[in-house]
Amino acid sequence: MSSIFIIVPIASVLALVFAWFFFKSMMKNSEGTDRMKEIAQYVREGAMAYLKRQYKVVGIVFVILFILLTIMAYFGVQNPFVPIAFLTGGFFSGLCGFLGMKTATFASARTAHGASKSLNKGLQVAFRSGAVMGLIVVGFALLDIAAWYFFLSEVVFTPEHMANGAEFLGLHFVHGSADYVTNGVINDAGQRVKLIEITVTMLTFGMGASTQALFARVGGGIYTKAADVGADLVGKVEAGIPEDDPRNPATIADNVGDNVGDVAGMGADLYESYAGSILATAALGAALPVVVLSDTGIDPVKAVTAPMIVAAIGIILSIVGIFMVRTKESATQKNLLNALLIGTGGSSVLILIAMAGMAYLGWVTWGVFWAVIIGLAAGVIIGQATEYFTSDEYKPTKGIAEQAQQGPATTIIDGLAVGMYSTWIPVVTIVLGIMGSFWAAGGAEHFAMGVYGIGFAAVGMLSTLGITLATDAFGPIADNAGGNAEMAELPPEVRERTDALDMLGNTTAATGKGFAIGSAALTAMALISAYMEEIRLWFGKIATAGEGFVTKGSYIFYNDIAPAAQDGMQAIKISTASVKDFTAAYDVTLFNPLFLGGLFLGSMMAFLFSAMTMKAVGRAAGAMVDEVRRQFRDIKGILEGTATPEYAKCVEISTKGAQKEMLVPSLVAIIVPVIVGATMGVAGVIGLLAGGLTAGFTLAVFMNNAGGAWDNAKKYIEKGNYGGKGSEAHHAGVVGDTVGDPFKDTSGPSLNILIKLMTMVSVVMAGLTVTLSLL
Amino acid sequence: MSSIFIIVPIASVLALVFAWFFFKSMMKNSEGTDRMKEIAQYVREGAMAYLKRQYKVVGIVFVILFILLTIMAYFGVQNPFVPIAFLTGGFFSGLCGFLGMKTATFASARTAHGASKSLNKGLQVAFRSGAVMGLIVVGFALLDIAAWYFFLSEVVFTPEHMANGAEFLGLHFVHGSADYVTNGVINDAGQRVKLIEITVTMLTFGMGASTQALFARVGGGIYTKAADVGADLVGKVEAGIPEDDPRNPATIADNVGDNVGDVAGMGADLYESYAGSILATAALGAALPVVVLSDTGIDPVKAVTAPMIVAAIGIILSIVGIFMVRTKESATQKNLLNALLIGTGGSSVLILIAMAGMAYLGWVTWGVFWAVIIGLAAGVIIGQATEYFTSDEYKPTKGIAEQAQQGPATTIIDGLAVGMYSTWIPVVTIVLGIMGSFWAAGGAEHFAMGVYGIGFAAVGMLSTLGITLATDAFGPIADNAGGNAEMAELPPEVRERTDALDMLGNTTAATGKGFAIGSAALTAMALISAYMEEIRLWFGKIATAGEGFVTKGSYIFYNDIAPAAQDGMQAIKISTASVKDFTAAYDVTLFNPLFLGGLFLGSMMAFLFSAMTMKAVGRAAGAMVDEVRRQFRDIKGILEGTATPEYAKCVEISTKGAQKEMLVPSLVAIIVPVIVGATMGVAGVIGLLAGGLTAGFTLAVFMNNAGGAWDNAKKYIEKGNYGGKGSEAHHAGVVGDTVGDPFKDTSGPSLNILIKLMTMVSVVMAGLTVTLSLL
Repeated sequence: MSSIFIIVPIASVLALVFAWFFFKSMMKNSEGTDRMKEIAQYVREGAMAYLKRQYKVVGIVFVILFILLTIMAYFGVQNPFVPIAFLTGGFFSGLCGFLGMKTATFASARTAHGASKSLNKGLQVAFRSGAVMGLIVVGFALLDIAAWYFFLSEVVFTPEHMANGAEFLGLHFVHGSADYVTNGVINDAGQRVKLIEITVTMLTFGMGASTQALFARVGGGIYTKAADVGADLVGKVEAGIPEDDPRNPATIADNVGDNVGDVAGMGADLYESYAGSILATAALGAALPVVVLSDTGIDPVKAVTAPMIVAAIGIILSIVGIFMVRTKESATQKNLLNALLIGTGGSSVLILIAMAGMAYLGWVTWGVFWAVIIGLAAGVIIGQATEYFTSDEYKPTKGIAEQAQQGPATTIIDGLAVGMYSTWIPVVTIVLGIMGSFWAAGGAEHFAMGVYGIGFAAVGMLSTLGITLATDAFGPIADNAGGNAEMAELPPEVRERTDALDMLGNTTAATGKGFAIGSAALTAMALISAYMEEIRLWFGKIATAGEGFVTKGSYIFYNDIAPAAQDGMQAIKISTASVKDFTAAYDVTLFNPLFLGGLFLGSMMAFLFSAMTMKAVGRAAGAMVDEVRRQFRDIKGILEGTATPEYAKCVEISTKGAQKEMLVPSLVAIIVPVIVGATMGVAGVIGLLAGGLTAGFTLAVFMNNAGGAWDNAKKYIEKGNYGGKGSEAHHAGVVGDTVGDPFKDTSGPSLNILIKLMTMVSVVMAGLTVTLSLL
Repeated sequence: MSSIFIIVPIASVLALVFAWFFFKSMMKNSEGTDRMKEIAQYVREGAMAYLKRQYKVVGIVFVILFILLTIMAYFGVQNPFVPIAFLTGGFFSGLCGFLGMKTATFASARTAHGASKSLNKGLQVAFRSGAVMGLIVVGFALLDIAAWYFFLSEVVFTPEHMANGAEFLGLHFVHGSADYVTNGVINDAGQRVKLIEITVTMLTFGMGASTQALFARVGGGIYTKAADVGADLVGKVEAGIPEDDPRNPATIADNVGDNVGDVAGMGADLYESYAGSILATAALGAALPVVVLSDTGIDPVKAVTAPMIVAAIGIILSIVGIFMVRTKESATQKNLLNALLIGTGGSSVLILIAMAGMAYLGWVTWGVFWAVIIGLAAGVIIGQATEYFTSDEYKPTKGIAEQAQQGPATTIIDGLAVGMYSTWIPVVTIVLGIMGSFWAAGGAEHFAMGVYGIGFAAVGMLSTLGITLATDAFGPIADNAGGNAEMAELPPEVRERTDALDMLGNTTAATGKGFAIGSAALTAMALISAYMEEIRLWFGKIATAGEGFVTKGSYIFYNDIAPAAQDGMQAIKISTASVKDFTAAYDVTLFNPLFLGGLFLGSMMAFLFSAMTMKAVGRAAGAMVDEVRRQFRDIKGILEGTATPEYAKCVEISTKGAQKEMLVPSLVAIIVPVIVGATMGVAGVIGLLAGGLTAGFTLAVFMNNAGGAWDNAKKYIEKGNYGGKGSEAHHAGVVGDTVGDPFKDTSGPSLNILIKLMTMVSVVMAGLTVTLSLL
């Protein structure tokens, strides 16, 4: 382990320290009046009640998966550290969700109180609270990575344990011809084996994060929309009371939903992308063929640790960026936006300088430097495109508003068309990003280095996540602050200020959404490449171990990689005399019907998953609608404000609905890759992942942007265009917005997770897939 | 050419003879009253006016493409027969559209008149007229194939022309080592070269059919929905007059639209699939490696002609099936459906018996026999799934109707969810169909035979097209007959009978839609495989010719295929010393970023194309709405029935709108594969095609089924459920139906064509793509 690696744990601890510092400084602010405290308490309790129940369900799923992974490890088709790594990944992700929610729910009343003094004060509270979430996510993710890397490289893969014939925890290495240890020191071949084994082990802990993220995104997405639709349909439309009115029984659930969906869901999503991109890139670095390393002059340990170090530098620069976000007391809306842009833009520029330094020092190649630039640029372009297609300042959204004059049908058709049309910029950007980072880093000549470059594009895009997530999580906090102000009946100027903050949050959220889906695509791409490395690894093990490989209780750590496996492209076609002919099963060309079948299934999974989450929202919202109607009917005096609605009932309905409904789609996402792996082999899995990635990405962009555009088209009409509120156009706009809600807040974002999770599951099941295809 | 091949031209001529016979017998029926004749005349004129203008636009596109192809042939990157083959493919497709429309427009008043006598009489007229369309399509397609096969094998590829050093039309063969002619007879190597060269040349004439189909489907889809929306929104909703009321200025355009979209569009779509599947399978048969042929005992000529012969037998059995459709004079609705099922089912069973006979005689392997069964079964399953998800007898559609009670938003959400959910059965069926036919026919052991089997699954599915298309085309004829009866103010029982026929048509149409998309997927699959053969062919030419290959004016017919090209899977990786290293460009694995980029772009193309066609419908419909409003306003006495509306104006607006709007999406579909080929090479193209196929298929099923379910949910409400006509639920149902119209009648069906056309364009451009990647 090199000495500069120490920056990785330091930066992650630093992130947590600053998160603690920001939390404390946020907590020093007053929560305002008793009424404000009371409302905040309701939301807090609702959010915690939800999390508790979610973690219970997730806990059961984790226990089951843990047992399955342990059984697999016992039978030798799984690395014995995988079950534990899986747990830590899930645990830290859950912890981030818990702490982030705590912070957000503590911050809303404080933000409202701050806003009652000045806009700037409100911004400071909200943004610093968002920064807590951002720093917790990157801090815990990198800490987990650093701890595992230290443990595996210093405790597990020592010269003693890797010596020929040595045993460790009842496990032993199986060797081909060469020893891995010379004179008590791990030699070059041993070093290579060590790095590959470490990185693929670590990679699998991403599955824990992925599973956690799935439940957070899907459950959160269902929760928030069920509450929202219930509050809107009955409260706003039927009873005619304003948004966030305390007389609406679903209003607390609605506010809880913002936290559950936008804070915890988004955080878990990006936690997974962040960890996944670093781990996948490290695994790709470990797999760089010797010839590529010598050609480019990169040391193998550097290739593996470089993504972690870039992430560490990114954390430090994110903290710097967060401190750069300050405004004068008299700040206007535009000043505020500029302040945020200085923060995020500043840390991006600093990252580039740091990357140039690393390239200069030989830690990464200059090609990788360009790959990082490409990754950052792709994130910005996708964000801008999202802004263009969903903001009411541009033609697409204005066009939907115009169509709204002719009724709901044309509003829907136009919104769907805008969403579908809007896919082209993000897709072309991702394609250019993948190809650009590939060619910049290695190209056809150094193929493996090119793939490593694609991983670095993802790492680069996510390196400043600490601050980017801060600007994202700040939106829902401001939104909740507005709810708090409304319910506590604060003076209108407070609500105006929180609305201004909310609007600011919407602008950054557009960028944030592009960022989330873009990074998911690049991360999935890197993960799929890493999956191939994993398959190659298992194949190497089996090829050398021969038919008798799967022997109970004896896990084979490693052995010489078959010579052909050294070659980036051909490895998958290895065929030795000692094992069955793999050609048909592993030939990942289009003409393998298993691969093509997988592609079809991947595409279908994206649609099926979206259908299930949309249906789930519908059912959960239906229950909420019934409950709100019941309360209006049964509890006398609600509408007059003389009786308090039963907020907790609505919270419970959303909670229960989300838990119940998230299970089936989640299990489908986990089980299908396993079934495909077992029945269609590696080629089928690769097809499934590639189809899921490409169709899922396109579908996600379509759903996100259509939903965003409908939302803003409605708001545009509400500003007084085409008849304003209450007009026919407005009525049609509301229909569009309602259709768009599950699109943009449930199904669309959940697809990010589907894409990554299916890959993660496949990575973890690689050993099983290879073994089954031998039976 | 073997003597049994004579069955191919005979069957195709037979189809045309029987089409003529059915046409004549239909024409013998009376068109009814003067008013009926007058209305039929309006529709006929409108349809012809539309076709005339469409063929003008298509003609210009064909001239441009013909010139481009000729230039390419001149520069040696194209086979010199391709430009002409392209023209014939387009010409016959256009001729089918023209004759089919003529028949349909002659038939509508006659059907109405028949229905005024009895239901059975109406059925006979409508069904026989549909059979004209069905038989014309299969007859001309197979005649074109037979003529080209004869011309190429008997006139072009003769021993004299293939002899070493011989010249033909200024072109000459370039040889590697061996002669193709021994003692004045083409030897085995020559035979192989001859068959490959013939089939790839013929394959390209499918592009003409594809281009024609694109304009027919897209233009027709836009036309029919613009007219429909215009007629409904202003006539039915605003003015409150019934469907097909003669006072509605757009009503003639609406009736023309049914012919334009459902008769000509559907016919051209299936003409293309039919020809494409036969040609692709023939090309795959020609490419069967020698070792596979000797293992399976199949003669190369038989392998190439078998799909044509199966098609020929299918034609004969379709004619038999058509005659099996007869009922008693007192037939009920159920009898009618049974009569149709006996016709289609009967010919399918007969086809299976014929296939077994061919397998017994050694014309095809028994594996291919099973592949045909699988193809037929897949078509039936997809059709049944379509029926389940879109018929109001089952839960999905009933659920949408139930949701309609809560308003348009939930109707839309539920319909979208149903559509997305419904993708799973067709996708799983296609996956099992591809894998099943692959394994049945050849499997991993005889890979090329397996791919050939996939082609045969498509051929099998389409073999009875003559009768299947008859049951499809009969629906719009009955629909038009209803329009004629309404406008001519015939007694209500006539309308009831035509409605019964229309409903019968809807049932067969559900199967027909599944059939169209399913066959498109299998055909595209076979075409993509054939594309690889084409690339291999060009590669072989270039590899042997060396650097100096591209020499102006000298088209190299053929030379020995590089030995590696014999191997189904590995061929694409050939690399010889005489040409640049193709590995990067041709390695079609997932890890080639060009391939992955192509996958992304393919998925995007499906969404982009759908967005463009939906937007196009919106704009064309807008113009129609304005015109109908103008006529109601300006022409006094329309609503009182004292003045005749200007029907022709509406027809012209729909015609112009369709022509204008179809151009951009059509050109995008043609140009994108060329651009991708020129910039991203073969790997990029394969990715584009695979992504377009898988995402496009899923998206098409989603759109078709969502649209169908909304349509029937509305009708279900109109039957008196959930409040019936005029209720809130009905209003919401109408919104769903309006959104669904462009889904199911424009964008969804157009995707069938996109999938096939992009592949066809790539096949034709293969030479250019290979050559450009060498520059």
